[in-house]
Amino acid sequence: MVYNVSSKPKLPRGFRDFTPEIYVLRRSIIDKIIRVFERFGFDPIDTPVLEYWETLAGKYGEEAESRLIWRFTDPWSGRDYALRYDLTVPLARFIASHQDIILPFKRYHIGPVWRHEEPQKGRYREFYQCDADIVGSPYPEADAEIIELVLETLDELGFREFIVRVNDRRILSGVFEEELGLNNPIQVYRIIDKLDKIGLEGVKRELLKLGLGEVLVSKILDLIGISAEPIESLKLICSKYGSNQKIIESCRHLEEVFSILNDKNRIRFDMSLVRGLDYYTGPLLEVNLEKPRIGSIAGGGRYDNLIGMFLGRNIPATGVSLGLERLIDAGLELGIFNIDKLTVAEAQVIVLEWSLLKYAWIIARELRRYGVNTRIDLGRSSEESQRKKAKKLKIPILIFIGKIEEESKTATIYNTITGERVTVKHEEVPKIVLRFLNKI
Amino acid sequence: MVYNVSSKPKLPRGFRDFTPEIYVLRRSIIDKIIRVFERFGFDPIDTPVLEYWETLAGKYGEEAESRLIWRFTDPWSGRDYALRYDLTVPLARFIASHQDIILPFKRYHIGPVWRHEEPQKGRYREFYQCDADIVGSPYPEADAEIIELVLETLDELGFREFIVRVNDRRILSGVFEEELGLNNPIQVYRIIDKLDKIGLEGVKRELLKLGLGEVLVSKILDLIGISAEPIESLKLICSKYGSNQKIIESCRHLEEVFSILNDKNRIRFDMSLVRGLDYYTGPLLEVNLEKPRIGSIAGGGRYDNLIGMFLGRNIPATGVSLGLERLIDAGLELGIFNIDKLTVAEAQVIVLEWSLLKYAWIIARELRRYGVNTRIDLGRSSEESQRKKAKKLKIPILIFIGKIEEESKTATIYNTITGERVTVKHEEVPKIVLRFLNKI
Repeated sequence: MVYNVSSKPKLPRGFRDFTPEIYVLRRSIIDKIIRVFERFGFDPIDTPVLEYWETLAGKYGEEAESRLIWRFTDPWSGRDYALRYDLTVPLARFIASHQDIILPFKRYHIGPVWRHEEPQKGRYREFYQCDADIVGSPYPEADAEIIELVLETLDELGFREFIVRVNDRRILSGVFEEELGLNNPIQVYRIIDKLDKIGLEGVKRELLKLGLGEVLVSKILDLIGISAEPIESLKLICSKYGSNQKIIESCRHLEEVFSILNDKNRIRFDMSLVRGLDYYTGPLLEVNLEKPRIGSIAGGGRYDNLIGMFLGRNIPATGVSLGLERLIDAGLELGIFNIDKLTVAEAQVIVLEWSLLKYAWIIARELRRYGVNTRIDLGRSSEESQRKKAKKLKIPILIFIGKIEEESKTATIYNTITGERVTVKHEEVPKIVLRFLNKI
Repeated sequence: MVYNVSSKPKLPRGFRDFTPEIYVLRRSIIDKIIRVFERFGFDPIDTPVLEYWETLAGKYGEEAESRLIWRFTDPWSGRDYALRYDLTVPLARFIASHQDIILPFKRYHIGPVWRHEEPQKGRYREFYQCDADIVGSPYPEADAEIIELVLETLDELGFREFIVRVNDRRILSGVFEEELGLNNPIQVYRIIDKLDKIGLEGVKRELLKLGLGEVLVSKILDLIGISAEPIESLKLICSKYGSNQKIIESCRHLEEVFSILNDKNRIRFDMSLVRGLDYYTGPLLEVNLEKPRIGSIAGGGRYDNLIGMFLGRNIPATGVSLGLERLIDAGLELGIFNIDKLTVAEAQVIVLEWSLLKYAWIIARELRRYGVNTRIDLGRSSEESQRKKAKKLKIPILIFIGKIEEESKTATIYNTITGERVTVKHEEVPKIVLRFLNKI
């Protein structure tokens, strides 16, 4: 076998390994998210990691497609493939591929996506999204269910101080494009999107630099200042632009959403929310934590035309995506998540002499049969080394097997949490361990 | 937005979507596997989907590396990447990347791998492996634990008729190469590997065609005919080749493995087992079901040099890989697995008039709060259509909300399994539904 130490292999740049303690934390968070998603009756699906490039092409906009999508040509077939960039376009392709699916279809999808970004702190090239979408309903109650789902999910995870900001793509375009007559809306939206970072003054400066007149700029600033109790805000918009049919209709749609939700404290209408304009067509939402300020942890909205691009007939859809990495970073910083489990093992059988292995093995086997996650040292380490490793891994229960234990068919059980230590008949071991673990 | 119906996007060839009913089945199987792996104290990890090509290069042998690995050049950086081909080489890279890990390290890893094979029935380009490995122990008890783990896992999944075949790479090479003096062992191994398909006669024919003499061929046939009670078989080998130190030592190693396991019925020593020779160095194992005959559903062995290739110092390792797809196909055929859940939803709120939506919503919210997975129609369908869809999805509990229910603040609950139907006060709804679901 070729032995080539010089080329010591590395983790690819921007990618991560998940060690057990991180994996266990991530899983516990994903499990909570799944629990809420399923409570709402969303069903799990999965799609391939790869899609044909043509499936993703033309869906995300210029920047993503020219720079951020991991695409490549398969040298054998000459076909172009891409690693999935999000879970929304694959959903649209999925619906087109499975036309027997009953609508409205509520699916969730939790899995990695890939972006060819420059890696930096908290930004990876492979990261997880947790998406929930409703396909086949044009009604406000679908948008309301998505918002309620986000509220419940964050609640289940233990977040308390957060705001769901809501806007509507049609109100945005109705007001800015139709009523104010902006002819470079995308550029204006990009500036508005920076409000969080550069403040109102910064936005004003950049809008003026864009060549907009003072009057127009001050109207825009007035508008993006609307971030208040939803129903009041909508009334204000209507009183200003009540002659525009599109604005009226989308205000009514949002009013229905808000009336179903009636959570006055955590939902806000916010005209400065302009997110991901590529495929959105209606209500938009985004969740920002009050602290830590790490950008949005969830976002989404209605995209009624995307599936139609694949299917040739229109199917309305609305959904949300939670960013697992940011949720975890935030939860760790807030202290609502902890990296406290270094191993799944709950008990370790400590073997005092290796001639006793077979007896120790029987004890371990018995414990496993009772559902206790049990390790036994496979390295023939000394007693001290076995204890040290168990301590480092914070394994709560130690079971000592020495000559005395083997001869008397007993085991000595040590509860490292309470300091309790007992020697019991071998058939009693599982019961005592389960009791020490508070499982019975 | 560009609307291009002509290029109807397709699932990439050889790849699959998982619809909810398949996803739920797969998850239930993966959960069972995880439960057993964790009972043995194996800890979960994950690694990236991509590795640098040089990490995989030189590990799998000619065929895999020239044809089967999905590799590509990143057009931006010019670097070569590859989709992981298995979970073993990534483990070796993981150990080299995390040198603070406590040894012996027992990890499991369940996830997709990619092979650029020609797709056919039951063979996909993206499929799941479930791997458990022990890194850092050269001792027979580590190999024994791997075999016990496989037995327990298959047992937990409900398989009854299967055999774990065991052999040892050192016995193989000691006997065939050192004792019989084969100078083209790989070709001979490949022919032996076909025993299952072409039978003893077929193997004989092909060996003769290879140019081996009659005497040598009959010796080989005698040897690969050894497939019996382990300890007896090892004695037989020793009586024939007792002067070869390597064979003696590996026989002793296997004897210890077998003595720890002492499951006489499901473990067999089998000289014809020659699997995946690329990185194996010691005991080998493979599990075949008696029926259906779909090839091996699990395989593995000891690979003491692989991690050293990355690390510059040797670390022994042994492990096993279960193929999820074959397990599922076999379990479905045997009837031990069933695709019986089409949705995670347990209850559906049927809304008789859409003016009653808000009251129905309150009922659904309450049910979710009690942990019942609850759907509410978001398509404003007719009562009949709501019922039909719920029936198609086999949702067991229906909750009817009509004018009478709204006015009297009640709900009518229908248990589709038992046919029971009751109208109760709205605060009683969760209790009744939980009882109908046998959850309390």
